[in-house]
Amino acid sequence: MRLRLTRHGVCIPGFKAAGARSGKYGVALIKSEAPATAAVMLTSNKVKAAPLLVSREHAGNEIFGIIANSGNANAFTGEAGMRDARSMCSLAAELLGGSAENYLVASTGVIGRRLDLARVESLARRAAQSLECSPQASEAAARAIMTTDTFPKLCSVEAVLEDGKRYHVGGIAKGAGMIAPELRHATMLCFLTTNARLERDELEEALAGAVKQSFNRVVIDGDTSTNDFVALLANGSSDCEGEGFQEALNLVTQTLAKSIARDGEGATKYIEVRVLGARSDAEAELAARAVAGSNLVKSAVFGGDPNWGRIVAALGYSGAELVPEKLSLYVGTKGDERRVCLVKEGKPLAIEGTQELKAAEEVFSGREIYITAELNLGSGRGEAYGCDLSYDYVRINAEYTT
Amino acid sequence: MRLRLTRHGVCIPGFKAAGARSGKYGVALIKSEAPATAAVMLTSNKVKAAPLLVSREHAGNEIFGIIANSGNANAFTGEAGMRDARSMCSLAAELLGGSAENYLVASTGVIGRRLDLARVESLARRAAQSLECSPQASEAAARAIMTTDTFPKLCSVEAVLEDGKRYHVGGIAKGAGMIAPELRHATMLCFLTTNARLERDELEEALAGAVKQSFNRVVIDGDTSTNDFVALLANGSSDCEGEGFQEALNLVTQTLAKSIARDGEGATKYIEVRVLGARSDAEAELAARAVAGSNLVKSAVFGGDPNWGRIVAALGYSGAELVPEKLSLYVGTKGDERRVCLVKEGKPLAIEGTQELKAAEEVFSGREIYITAELNLGSGRGEAYGCDLSYDYVRINAEYTT
Repeated sequence: MRLRLTRHGVCIPGFKAAGARSGKYGVALIKSEAPATAAVMLTSNKVKAAPLLVSREHAGNEIFGIIANSGNANAFTGEAGMRDARSMCSLAAELLGGSAENYLVASTGVIGRRLDLARVESLARRAAQSLECSPQASEAAARAIMTTDTFPKLCSVEAVLEDGKRYHVGGIAKGAGMIAPELRHATMLCFLTTNARLERDELEEALAGAVKQSFNRVVIDGDTSTNDFVALLANGSSDCEGEGFQEALNLVTQTLAKSIARDGEGATKYIEVRVLGARSDAEAELAARAVAGSNLVKSAVFGGDPNWGRIVAALGYSGAELVPEKLSLYVGTKGDERRVCLVKEGKPLAIEGTQELKAAEEVFSGREIYITAELNLGSGRGEAYGCDLSYDYVRINAEYTT
Repeated sequence: MRLRLTRHGVCIPGFKAAGARSGKYGVALIKSEAPATAAVMLTSNKVKAAPLLVSREHAGNEIFGIIANSGNANAFTGEAGMRDARSMCSLAAELLGGSAENYLVASTGVIGRRLDLARVESLARRAAQSLECSPQASEAAARAIMTTDTFPKLCSVEAVLEDGKRYHVGGIAKGAGMIAPELRHATMLCFLTTNARLERDELEEALAGAVKQSFNRVVIDGDTSTNDFVALLANGSSDCEGEGFQEALNLVTQTLAKSIARDGEGATKYIEVRVLGARSDAEAELAARAVAGSNLVKSAVFGGDPNWGRIVAALGYSGAELVPEKLSLYVGTKGDERRVCLVKEGKPLAIEGTQELKAAEEVFSGREIYITAELNLGSGRGEAYGCDLSYDYVRINAEYTT
């Protein structure tokens, strides 16, 4: 199997999409040309937005498509919110066919406010007029679900099998703030499509596996949203069993996850953390996330300050086993991830007056910082994707609802 | 027993102190006039700074005093760092009497750099010349351990017993950044003194209890330092059993803890969170900390934006059980903590166009915000103390080592 990365987003053959925006409000539509099987993952937050609860009810049905809005989260809105989420499904059915129960629904935006259904409807009608299978339509849908995102996130892969047959996997996502992975749960809005033919249990297993090594590795601010939602639709229209599907799906979700990290609220720099030699993969993931999620590490990266002691501190409080005398630490850039050795088996090398500190300053002043920690305690490996903490993060979140 | 709050810091009768600073470096000395019994609590970070390890070794001995420096954490400095920490104890012994093993030592500042012992020595000698028992000396010691703190933190209480006897409890602390409670572990530097007569096990139990309901409730940025250290010295010089000691110690540590929260790095506002009606105290504490620690809540408070949905979201991901339909939420000011009801048993009241939203805006625009959440699930109670997230937090931490 060969995988070819493309930018069709959800608009792989067999799926159409559309999006419409007006100011900070938007509606995205995704339509499967044949009834699809769905797998969904919901936020671990105890307060789950109404659309997520409705989507969970519908997920076992034949799914014809997805409707999603931005600008209002329809979260903490009680029974009225549930009715509004169902109304969005009815609206989708009216515009795209089938009945309300054939649709998934998602929302993102301000918590605790009733949805303005008239606005959602008018945007959805406008979007429906331009429904098509094209990268442009996919991008319009990706733009329609943006909140504080600064660019649309979409990607797709074509999987070419040995016998020449091919299938596709695509996705769009939105991220930006309120993002922290919680075990195997979803962390933002992501809609995935595939025209491979898969059973529901295969689909669910593949999605759980993919989320674990993609969105669950993204850390923006440690907050877990009430609205995180990932949905994967498989409609079998390629007439191709999903051979190698996990690998293809992983590539799409990892690409989207890294886009989300790059576009964290106020982000000026991308941070990728790799932890090797932990006692287990779980501990390595924990340690990587602690580093990527540390406000102090993030602030230091923003300022271009090679204050690597904070990386050591974050590894130390992560919960992963750590023996200071065994720790080696590197920073570098893409393709040259270990350019500078900051610490060699417990011995600080990047100290005042050294070449290493100078080189570390150079790396920290760049736009992409790759951090590698070798714990030398076992063979556990983990990764995390994040961004710096800038003045703009504060500005964006200080003025969100006003 | 009556408790009278004073500002003598560690300089209660029976103890002397001194401090000296030069730029971002400082040294504090505390001397007990009689050999004291000590209880200490160390950071939960796997990377524990050398002085903490040395203090742990010494804590079982008769303790004559404490030496502490700011500007360099002496953390992740290996065997050399251990020697340097021991040298600080020897220096204290030379200046204040006894031998190195009679002293506790602590450090705060940049991680991963060797200590400049000559500088520490010169500051310690200067400090020793002004050693005395006075509020001024205590404040000098509190100032000497400041890093990004903007004001010295000291407090004390006089406990007057029924029979007219009295004893004292005092303390100084430093906080500011890299502060997150980790179960029953310490979270910053805090030196406590008492002239009550207590056994070591009583002392340890009292300290653990006091830390749990004071420093462990402070949340600044979710980072746990390599150097967090709390020490309590009891020298019995009041000739008074410590009747009601826990209450007196709690008052001192809570006062210091709230000072630390008020002086979080870049803080412009103080946030106090109270969670009632949780299934257990532990869950209530968890929920309160999630709210006080949420970057999104903190940013909203900084911006004066009554985006209470973020409080709901933080409660929801805290790990505490939560039933949205049962949740009530209030904000207010000191002494009027429930001024505004935002949510009444699941029903949002502070929505567009209401008096409640207007009143919430007023509260959020103030300097002190008290948040109360009633989960209505049991009788668990918990609190957390924090501050907003401002541009200055980012600035301070972007430029720390440079």
